[in-house]
Amino acid sequence: MITSLVTGGAGFIGAHVSRELLKLGHHVVILDDLSGGYEENVPSEATFVQGSIMDHELLEKLFTEHKFDYVYHLAAYAAEGLSHFIKRFNYNNNLIGSVNLINESVKNKVKCFVFTSSIAVYGGLQPPMREDMVPHPEDPYGIAKLAVEQELKVTKEMFGLDYIIFRPHNVYGEYQNLGDKYRNVVGIFMNQLMQDNPLTIFGDGNQTRAFSYIGDLAPHIANSVNIRETYGEVINIGAEKEYTIKELAETVMETMGLEGKLRFVEARNEVTHAYADHSKAHRLFGTDTNHTLKQGLDKMVGWAKNTGIKKSQKFKNIEIIENLPPLWLED
Amino acid sequence: MITSLVTGGAGFIGAHVSRELLKLGHHVVILDDLSGGYEENVPSEATFVQGSIMDHELLEKLFTEHKFDYVYHLAAYAAEGLSHFIKRFNYNNNLIGSVNLINESVKNKVKCFVFTSSIAVYGGLQPPMREDMVPHPEDPYGIAKLAVEQELKVTKEMFGLDYIIFRPHNVYGEYQNLGDKYRNVVGIFMNQLMQDNPLTIFGDGNQTRAFSYIGDLAPHIANSVNIRETYGEVINIGAEKEYTIKELAETVMETMGLEGKLRFVEARNEVTHAYADHSKAHRLFGTDTNHTLKQGLDKMVGWAKNTGIKKSQKFKNIEIIENLPPLWLED
Repeated sequence: MITSLVTGGAGFIGAHVSRELLKLGHHVVILDDLSGGYEENVPSEATFVQGSIMDHELLEKLFTEHKFDYVYHLAAYAAEGLSHFIKRFNYNNNLIGSVNLINESVKNKVKCFVFTSSIAVYGGLQPPMREDMVPHPEDPYGIAKLAVEQELKVTKEMFGLDYIIFRPHNVYGEYQNLGDKYRNVVGIFMNQLMQDNPLTIFGDGNQTRAFSYIGDLAPHIANSVNIRETYGEVINIGAEKEYTIKELAETVMETMGLEGKLRFVEARNEVTHAYADHSKAHRLFGTDTNHTLKQGLDKMVGWAKNTGIKKSQKFKNIEIIENLPPLWLED
Repeated sequence: MITSLVTGGAGFIGAHVSRELLKLGHHVVILDDLSGGYEENVPSEATFVQGSIMDHELLEKLFTEHKFDYVYHLAAYAAEGLSHFIKRFNYNNNLIGSVNLINESVKNKVKCFVFTSSIAVYGGLQPPMREDMVPHPEDPYGIAKLAVEQELKVTKEMFGLDYIIFRPHNVYGEYQNLGDKYRNVVGIFMNQLMQDNPLTIFGDGNQTRAFSYIGDLAPHIANSVNIRETYGEVINIGAEKEYTIKELAETVMETMGLEGKLRFVEARNEVTHAYADHSKAHRLFGTDTNHTLKQGLDKMVGWAKNTGIKKSQKFKNIEIIENLPPLWLED
């Protein structure tokens, strides 16, 4: 039987990839510290271990015990905008944690290490972002993701560990953490609407993103280890069509059947347009019919209403307060 | 009075930069955990604090207490070849430690952060390495150095912290740690000769490096904060002329007046030729007459004979043993 480790498997993308792996017949072990995920997201057929990728002694035990064939490394604290203000936390979580997993994967001869990087490695480059562009990260989150990508490349050279790198963007869908006010605008809007709060928008709301429904990504991430051509590749994955943040707000309200006010707050330091070229993904995985934003939101809304309001927690260990968007200082 | 923090100031490059800063009239505070440095390298006029850049609480106290004008961040564990096998240690020391210092420099409005990166960020690119080349690190040490460079750039954007980045290479001279068998071939050869041991050479010894005498670098690093044109720049610094490792071995023996055997061991994964273009440094600092290898070694040998043999310590926490050069497993 094939055994796969999914880090962050109680989180959003991890919960979906775990389900896809179960469909493929893998035995799935989920490692998650529940800092952003929820135990109820863990599928009942999976083995759940509560713990952190920063705990290298735990990893050592886990790898020895389970002899993983594949590692799907999805655990991260993906609050890109906040990463300027929590640099140490960002690098500990997103780089040191990844390095701990890479160490164990080398020692235990894992067959392939699947890593979800991010479109953040491109920074403010002229879109559409293509995988052969020279990365130019503009925040600590993007720098950490890029360092892990480079680390996987030198580890392949030195130790032969195979890898596949995905760069997803603006993913939304069921199991998203609605209670995190620092990341995932779709979830933030739904949570604000359900609480009858205004939808907060940084700047004029004309910045665009190509929102990607998780159901269009997770099967490919899970199955990539079975497609030899993906090994050693960096692959953009996500939706094509861009929407402004204002359009997103309208569509979320429409889908939920709820009206909300828009609250515009001072623009933060973020790229205005970010969308990616997906021709490599299409070549490797075949072209799918993707969900439209409306179709994806329809699926997510049913789940969100069922899940209900999540109380937003303030991030407790901000390292630098200077220039922090005032919105993030509010309770 | 101008106050400067020098991290790694009890180590090799730090000991020299500290002395240059004292000559410039700075009050110098040295932070060093003595993992690679020696307290006797600390100049008597400097304030010495024993501690690690990974101890962010200590840094917080230190910055509040001293109100540093400038930070010279020279602390690192610079064993490039070993970094594959001590990935976690490498990133903790060389990245997280740097991030802790950057955080405090932002919070305390340091005027300029001077960082010694490394030629390692270029990896195996076609030499001569120029600062405008797209970096291509090939080991965890180079990846960590590059991440700190990127971190300084985004920190300047977000918080206005000024920086100067140096990329030195193959530096040797007085105060070098003779007891570290994983780095600094000049010191390793001297230590082996004094112990009547053969000089160990990886591969055929025809790989070339441009060995750089510390006395030609340290004054420029120290004074860079006074040259406005250096702010925000990345600057290669070091010697022009390349020598093979075999030539180095001959010259060290000649200079020390000691004969040694050469012991060739299996080649390790390293770049064959590495030298850099220094036209930017010449433009910014003026062209100096650099020490020849013989002149630099002459100065170092006097000091080394006086210092005497250092017992080499084995690195205790190797994380991956696979593919470790057998030489490094010997006692």
